[in-house]
Order: sequence, then structure tokens, then C-alpha cells
Amino acid sequence: MDYVVRGEVLMRAAALEKELAQGIVKPFKEVIRASIGDCHAMGQQPITFLRQVLGLITYQPLFNDPTIPEDAKERARTILADCVGNSVGSYTDSSGIEIIRRHIAQYIQKRDGGIPSDPSNIIMSAGATGAIKSLMSLFRCTIDGKLPGVMIPIPQYPMYSATIAELEMAQICYHLDEERRWGLDIPGLERSVNEAKASCVPRILVVINPGNPTGQVLSRENIESIIKFAYKENLVIFADEVYQYNVHEEGSVFHSFKKVMMEMGAPYNRMELCSFMSCSKGYMGECGIRGGYVEVVNMCSDVKAMLLKSISALVCPSTIGQACMDVLVNPPKPGEPSYEQFIREKNAVLASLKERAALVADTFNSFEGFSCNPVQGAMYAFPRIHLPEKAIQAARKAGQEPDVFYVYQLLEQTGICVVPGSGFGQKAGTFHIRSTILPQPEKLKEMLGVLRSYHEKFLLQYQ
Amino acid sequence: MDYVVRGEVLMRAAALEKELAQGIVKPFKEVIRASIGDCHAMGQQPITFLRQVLGLITYQPLFNDPTIPEDAKERARTILADCVGNSVGSYTDSSGIEIIRRHIAQYIQKRDGGIPSDPSNIIMSAGATGAIKSLMSLFRCTIDGKLPGVMIPIPQYPMYSATIAELEMAQICYHLDEERRWGLDIPGLERSVNEAKASCVPRILVVINPGNPTGQVLSRENIESIIKFAYKENLVIFADEVYQYNVHEEGSVFHSFKKVMMEMGAPYNRMELCSFMSCSKGYMGECGIRGGYVEVVNMCSDVKAMLLKSISALVCPSTIGQACMDVLVNPPKPGEPSYEQFIREKNAVLASLKERAALVADTFNSFEGFSCNPVQGAMYAFPRIHLPEKAIQAARKAGQEPDVFYVYQLLEQTGICVVPGSGFGQKAGTFHIRSTILPQPEKLKEMLGVLRSYHEKFLLQYQ
Repeated sequence: MDYVVRGEVLMRAAALEKELAQGIVKPFKEVIRASIGDCHAMGQQPITFLRQVLGLITYQPLFNDPTIPEDAKERARTILADCVGNSVGSYTDSSGIEIIRRHIAQYIQKRDGGIPSDPSNIIMSAGATGAIKSLMSLFRCTIDGKLPGVMIPIPQYPMYSATIAELEMAQICYHLDEERRWGLDIPGLERSVNEAKASCVPRILVVINPGNPTGQVLSRENIESIIKFAYKENLVIFADEVYQYNVHEEGSVFHSFKKVMMEMGAPYNRMELCSFMSCSKGYMGECGIRGGYVEVVNMCSDVKAMLLKSISALVCPSTIGQACMDVLVNPPKPGEPSYEQFIREKNAVLASLKERAALVADTFNSFEGFSCNPVQGAMYAFPRIHLPEKAIQAARKAGQEPDVFYVYQLLEQTGICVVPGSGFGQKAGTFHIRSTILPQPEKLKEMLGVLRSYHEKFLLQYQ
Repeated sequence: MDYVVRGEVLMRAAALEKELAQGIVKPFKEVIRASIGDCHAMGQQPITFLRQVLGLITYQPLFNDPTIPEDAKERARTILADCVGNSVGSYTDSSGIEIIRRHIAQYIQKRDGGIPSDPSNIIMSAGATGAIKSLMSLFRCTIDGKLPGVMIPIPQYPMYSATIAELEMAQICYHLDEERRWGLDIPGLERSVNEAKASCVPRILVVINPGNPTGQVLSRENIESIIKFAYKENLVIFADEVYQYNVHEEGSVFHSFKKVMMEMGAPYNRMELCSFMSCSKGYMGECGIRGGYVEVVNMCSDVKAMLLKSISALVCPSTIGQACMDVLVNPPKPGEPSYEQFIREKNAVLASLKERAALVADTFNSFEGFSCNPVQGAMYAFPRIHLPEKAIQAARKAGQEPDVFYVYQLLEQTGICVVPGSGFGQKAGTFHIRSTILPQPEKLKEMLGVLRSYHEKFLLQYQ
């Protein structure tokens, strides 16, 4: 059970930061953490309206502060009115505060062009991660002595492989198609599932859209094919849609799995689907607050009852995380006092991410031996690096995967921390790195410049 | 996997509340939730200093508010300085923010009269619950084909049985001794463990001190005997010490398992121990904030490495929950501007709980057929109720446990919600209820009066 985005490279980065703080001289002045989708850590500022609401609910004397706009106070009042004893210090229902779940359902319904969403299908959680773990564990029973299987993309977000291992389920890998902008390749899915059937019973298909670490935004046609495949194989779809706000490329559009499935009509609109969302990504980037939810669609009532029982043992997700989700799904509306500032801040974050997405992909593509798909969405570039044979041999000699070797030297020489592709999975013989697009623009340009020099030196050394 | 404190009685209580809100006439005006240790839900006010700190870290413009004292600002600054990007919106280490873990270690060390505590042994979590689940899952591997066993008290807090069931471990029940104020009876422990060995490998001994639902505070002698027993049986002790501030009875003192174990010297001071703490109880009662930690003592390095890996897949506990724990372990000191108000508020909460603890136990003991041990600590009374034979027959006829029957009728007739003893486990043929001591004093007196009338009517009806 390895979790590379919090693994050894990251621990080394933390150690280097400590050494720098102690005054130990390094070839760089700071560690740049381009390794993790942690927006605020890289200087993104919080959304004012959100923090006003969170401030109000935790410290109620703020209601007397005339500088806090009335719509923030109204949101905070609505949340507190649904907290027992009018305090965020009381427990909530295990699935979350009712009014917030209603707001979430309204948000989904609006997002999906009016397709109904039922608040009783919304389960709030500590980030999307908490919900993914709870939902996956529902399917962990063996079937006729065979392990239940979970199909995950390669490359994948390693929380999936870690959770599958922890739950002792079977991991079924399907490869995203780098040649087709990391889209899902249906014949590939079919090969994977058919091979897996010898040793396990496939139950779940995980799709991350927009993709992490790969940054693709799936086309509607691709989603339809995936749904048909899942239907044929009787798989529950886990749609990890936490990056639904992070769509950068002109012409790319986020389509929710639920909307596509419902619009496809029978028999697809009766399929079981879980869609996950979080406040850690998007334009808020509030990772530390730990807010999230899952919408469970068409889940059979026995399984749902089991789910509600199992989350009740976790008591409830944090009220502050829940409140954060409330603001995410119920932001200021036109005409409300906070609307203009809110929209300005939101758009500034998203516009800047869009620019940085293009900048990172373009820059990587200008490096010799790098090829990078467009960062259509999410917060990461995942370029392929064609490493010289001598570098591969040097890595093997050092007992490291070649991409790990590349990434470690990058860190030690420049302070730039990215994650080796092997931590996410990659086709044998190919090497990648995952870099976030999150450093602020000036810092990002500087980082890319340093990376270029490092890469050129690296090629010279091993060519 | 049943979780009675969030189970059917509670769902019925919630339904009744909704009916009342819709104007449906009931024999009562409100539902009184004496069923759950949820302080703020029952009117307890938050500690001002704590909420100032939480307000500051979420909404930083509050630093400009001259009404917020400097020590609160200093605490908030210290926390923010250890948050990457100076924001609670960034991820933290999986085990928590380093400065907070250092403060926790200092708190433990001071509490335990100078016995060292190492910050690297502190793992922060979402309430104590999160840590208990993470720690227990480390021991879930079968041994020589046998399930690992977890010894839990009967009566117990049902999160334990639910977690054991979820992890597919074996539950080993040992009975607390109601005749000896719910103390642990060592011959009883020995009988339980010896019987269990036929079918599982005992690994963990859970002790809740102060007790939930039983309210006992273990004597030092009792703790020493328990430690010797655990040593002999090679068990890891899980000390659930979340009520360490809630000691009410004159002469009762909280002794941490760690302190006792260390003071016993070799070989006991090398035993593996996990001690759990939370901000949900004590004098803060901040349940919804979801803060907690575990201190792992003498844990073998392989297991600890596994633990750190496994929590990394949960990313990190909420920053706000972590900050709440920071204030708990690092409150205002004498001489600081907030000290007097803080101590006043803290003492008022604890003194009032102490009064209510005595009131509830004394009142229950004045009811015909009730016998209640003193509520030495924690937040619950767990009286035994001697139900008339006719009531038992009526319950069986209705297909209910007699205590469930009693509790349901109480709820339907009076709006008072308590939890039946069968949800916690009780000796066959005995019946109990668990009532919190948390309703505010006037409300509590009113509730006890209504309960008395109900009980008298119940006895009349079935005698």
C-alpha cells in the first residue's frame, strides 16, 4: 500500500525544507512543491465570501461586524439554524446537515440541466477521499470465494490503489491512451476486464474526470461508451468528478456521468453510479478544511442502508467542511452584495489556472525529449520523458526506477519537487513526471526555467 | 454492525421532532435528546477563547479586531505559521501539524508528571473515532488462520463493536462489575480471554476510562491489575481516555494508563499502548469540529510505519479540528489576557456537569426499581431498571427487548430520548438505560420529573 503523493520523494522534500530553515546551504533557496494539488500551499488566496461564512459560524460575535456583508451572514444563519443548539460544535446527521444536502442536490440538478437530484442520495464526507473509502468498502465482500475487483485507470491517483489494497480487493488496471489525449480506450477496458475475470469478480469501474494525474477532460462520446461498457459488465461507476470546475482547454466541456447516463435513457439510466466532489479543488482549493460529498444514484436500498450504517460509526463529517461545501454549491447570486467580488475572485483563480495549464504543457513540449498532452482540465501536467539509455542504466545501477532517479536528482539539485510517473502507473518502458500547475505565475515561470536547465544538463550528462 | 446511539430510537426521535415542527400535536412540546454526548446540542456554550482562535485562523481579517485579545491572536499566528502558505486551506502532514503535535506532547508530559511524551508518537485524527479505527485496523490480520480478537467491556460504547465487525475481527466481551461501581474484574477478564482463545487470537484490550456508558473512574489499583493482565496476555492496550477532564465524584482521580504503566517500571513500561483523546468531550464539547489524537507508546517500528502509511491515504485530518486540539492542550496561561475568562468558563462547565452528575444519579436512585452507580466521570448515567415481569412479557409480545420497549414508550409519551442498555450490552436478565447528564440544569430537573411520572405510571400499568 504505497501512496506516492505522500511518499519518499515528498519526505525528502520536507527534510530539505528543514535543512534550509536550519541555514544549511543548498544549490537552491527554497523547495517548490509542484508535487501535490495543494492550492493554498502554493499561494492561492482563499475566497473572501467563503471565509466570511466560516468565520461567522465559528465565531458568532462576527455577526456584529458591519464590514461583513449581509449575504454572508444570511448563509451563516441558515447553516447555524440547522445545527442542533445553533452551534457548529454539535454533531450532525452522519450523512450531513440536511439543509446543506438540499443545497447540494439543487446544485447538481442545476448543473445537470434539471435532471432531478434527491438530497437523500447525498452523503457528506471528509473530502472526497472519505466518501470513496466508505463507498468502496461496501463492495469488498468476496463472491463465490473470489475477490471483488475494482477497475482503475493507469495512470491513476494512488489513493485508489492504496484503498483497494487496504480493503483487500482486487485491482484491475486499464490503460488510458496517451496517444488519444489520455482518453479511455474501450477495447482496452474490455481486455482488462476479461483477463481479470479469471481471478476476481469485477464490481466497480473508477473513472477520474477531469483526470488526475493526466489532465484529460472526457468527451461526451467517450463517456457514453464507458457507460455502455459498464452496463454490459454490470459494473458500478465511481465517477471522481472533483475537478469539475477545472476545465481549461478551449472546447473542452465537463459532462457529469450522471447527466450523460440519464440522457442516454433506458436501460442506462437505471445503472448504479457514485459521483464524488470536494472543496479541495475547483476554485476554492480548501484542502485542509476536508469537505466533500458523494451522490449515490440508483443504489439498491439494501446497499444504501448498509452505507448509512457504516458511516454512522464515523459519527459525522466536520461541520466546517460541510459549511464549506454549502458555500461551494450555494455561492452569492447576482444582485447579492458579495456577488461581484465573489465572481471576480473565482474567475481570477480559474483564468490564472487556465493560463498556467497552457504554459506548463507548452513549455514541457518545448523541452527535448518531453511530450505532454494538453492540460485540458484538473491541476496537473503528466509529460512523457524520453530518457537516454545511459540514464536508464545509471538509474538501474542506483536501484531506482528511471523516473524516480530523474525526479530525485531534480529535487536535490534544484529544490523542485514533482512526482515520478511510476507512482501513478505508466506503460512499461515509458517514463513520466507529474507536475502541478499550481505555483503562482511568476514562480511557475521561474520553476520551468530551472527545470529546463536541469533537463538540458541531464541530457548532456547521459547522452 | 449496529450503532445504537445513532440507531432506530434516535431515528424515531428525529421523526418526532419533524412532526412537532409540522404542528402535529403530541403529548409533549419538544424532544429532549438525553441520548447522545452532544454538549452544544443541549445548550452548552462554546469556550470564547477557543472560538476566537478558530475565527482568526479561518477569517484572517479578524486579526485587526481590537476586541480579540492578544493571546488568542498569538495562538492563531503560531498555528498559521505552521500551515503551508499560512492558510488552514492547505493540507497538513497526515499525522497533523507539527507544532500542534509538539503542544500535545507537552500537555501529556505535564499531565503525567513529567513522564516524557514524543511528538512523533502523536497522530492527529477526526475525533478519537478516526484514530481508533486506524489503529484497530493495523491489527486485523489473521494469525495462523485465526481471527485477531479485541477485548471490549460490556457495557461498551458501540463504536467499538461496529468497528470490530467492519474490520472482521473477533469481539471478546468482558463484563464490567456493576456491583463494584463498574470496575474491571480481573478474574472476569481472565475467563473471557481464556474462552476466546479457542476461536481467536486476543490482540487488543479496550478500556474506556472514565467509562462510557457506565461513568466509572478506574482506581489506580484497578489500572495496575489491568496492565498486569494485559502484559501476561501480550495484549496492546487501547485506552479510550476522551473523558479525562470529566471526573465528578469527590475522591475520584483520573490516572492515565501511560502514567501508571510507566510508573510500574519494567517490564510493564515497555508495553504497547494507544491512548485516545478528543475535543468532543471534556469542557469544550466541540463534537462537530472533529478533533482528536492518539498517542502511540512503545509501538514497534514496523507497525508504526504501517500506521503512517495507512493514514496517509486519508490525506490529513481537518485543520480546524487540529487547531481545536491545540487550544485544548495549550489554553491561556496565568497572566495572559484571556486567562481569567477562560478559567471561569471552563470551571463553570465542569462544575455544572459535576452537579448534574450527582443530581441524575441521586434522582434515579430515588425511583422505585432503579439502581444507579455514582456518575464518577464522563457524561452518562447507566441505571439498572428492575422491570416488572408483566412489562417483560408485554415487551416480548411486541417483539422488543424489554429495555427497548421501555425506552420507546418513554419517547412516544414524553419526548425524552434515552438509549436502551441492550445497545451497549448488559448481563442477561438485567435492563438498563443510558441517559446523558447534558441537558442544562433546569431542563434536566424538568426531564427527571417527567421521567419519574412516566416510570411510576409504567410500574402501575405492569404491576
